[in-house]
Amino acid sequence: MRIDIISAVPELLSGPLDYSIVGRARKAGHVEVVIHDLRSYTTDKHGKVDDYPYGGGAGLVMTPQPIFDCIQSLQKQRAYDEVIFPTPDAPVIEQQKVNELTLLNNIILLCGHYKGVDQRVRDELVTLEVSIGDYVLSGGELPAMVLVDGIVRLLPGVLGDAESALDDSFQDGLLSPPVYTRPANFRGNTIPEVLTSGNHNEIRKWREQKAIELSKKVRPDLYNKFINKS
Amino acid sequence: MRIDIISAVPELLSGPLDYSIVGRARKAGHVEVVIHDLRSYTTDKHGKVDDYPYGGGAGLVMTPQPIFDCIQSLQKQRAYDEVIFPTPDAPVIEQQKVNELTLLNNIILLCGHYKGVDQRVRDELVTLEVSIGDYVLSGGELPAMVLVDGIVRLLPGVLGDAESALDDSFQDGLLSPPVYTRPANFRGNTIPEVLTSGNHNEIRKWREQKAIELSKKVRPDLYNKFINKS
Repeated sequence: MRIDIISAVPELLSGPLDYSIVGRARKAGHVEVVIHDLRSYTTDKHGKVDDYPYGGGAGLVMTPQPIFDCIQSLQKQRAYDEVIFPTPDAPVIEQQKVNELTLLNNIILLCGHYKGVDQRVRDELVTLEVSIGDYVLSGGELPAMVLVDGIVRLLPGVLGDAESALDDSFQDGLLSPPVYTRPANFRGNTIPEVLTSGNHNEIRKWREQKAIELSKKVRPDLYNKFINKS
Repeated sequence: MRIDIISAVPELLSGPLDYSIVGRARKAGHVEVVIHDLRSYTTDKHGKVDDYPYGGGAGLVMTPQPIFDCIQSLQKQRAYDEVIFPTPDAPVIEQQKVNELTLLNNIILLCGHYKGVDQRVRDELVTLEVSIGDYVLSGGELPAMVLVDGIVRLLPGVLGDAESALDDSFQDGLLSPPVYTRPANFRGNTIPEVLTSGNHNEIRKWREQKAIELSKKVRPDLYNKFINKS
């Protein structure tokens, strides 16, 4: 899979793409992530990529020219499955949609910044708008990295068996049950006895029960969907 | 405001905290962000901060000792309003809750990694669990930075008047209307005429109408809430 990320502030796209699971997946060749500095595509003589909004109002708007030129130049080089624009003005993405995105070959992620991007970019170039949640951030760079992380950890070969994503929250429609590790007695605070019983059937039942209890308490919406399905 | 972030992989906490709005807010003293490397708190002779889960299963679990010692040592130095644990196993945060968090003085953000943290940490130390959305990521570092970004941009003095957050999506319960900038005619693609009319009343009405149309189409849930309120 190849992911091209376009940003007016590419310095923001470091840490999370360079270390840990995404960093290792890039080094191992499971995914190619290419960052494009929007400023190198502007024809404005002062290097600007934003301007005042028509009709007045607060904030600056990203101009169409550098974004059109950057995306169209990428599209001349290869076919892209989606041009994704992370924005709060869109349907909120959930795990099932992240799973689907892992099946694509080439995607572009366009990071908005300032007050937003010129609507003509969204109308003409963007094929998929997704929100990572109902809150506003200072730009699309963090949401783009959230999408990259969510996608890359599911690509074949990225997580070992020992880190399997199959018992993640949401993959069975419920939240995950509590987990405990050593020591069994930490400063007087002990773990549930069943976990050291060696009885795998009892452990499985306890975990199922806890996942259901937790979902019912914290996320009744997920619990109700699960109950109606089963 | 002071934000302490605790992580087993602090290299992930760079880019988004160092540049643009959050980076400038830190330099200007609007917020203090302090990163703690969990590995420097472990008493394990091999420097480990994770171990196998009791009861078996995939993945490693973060051990209680370094987290207890790190958080309790911080709590001896100052009073914290919340110890926040970003996790998909929690209620999903929305803008109103982000607004509320901006009123706090000192918060701790604990980043999970691997399969999760020992449940005793969540039971005894964590005061607020929040999910940034219904999807699984490789760790809590990106969600922690999403929270920091969402909070910091709303702190007094961080955004100038020209970047005002008051007409953000969600602050009035609706998505934002489309924005356009120069040129008015971009390669034959023109902007809506009203925006160059100079008639501020008509522009305001057009924007309201577009915000309502967009919300109704893309986010009927928000639209219905808005209609029932007004």
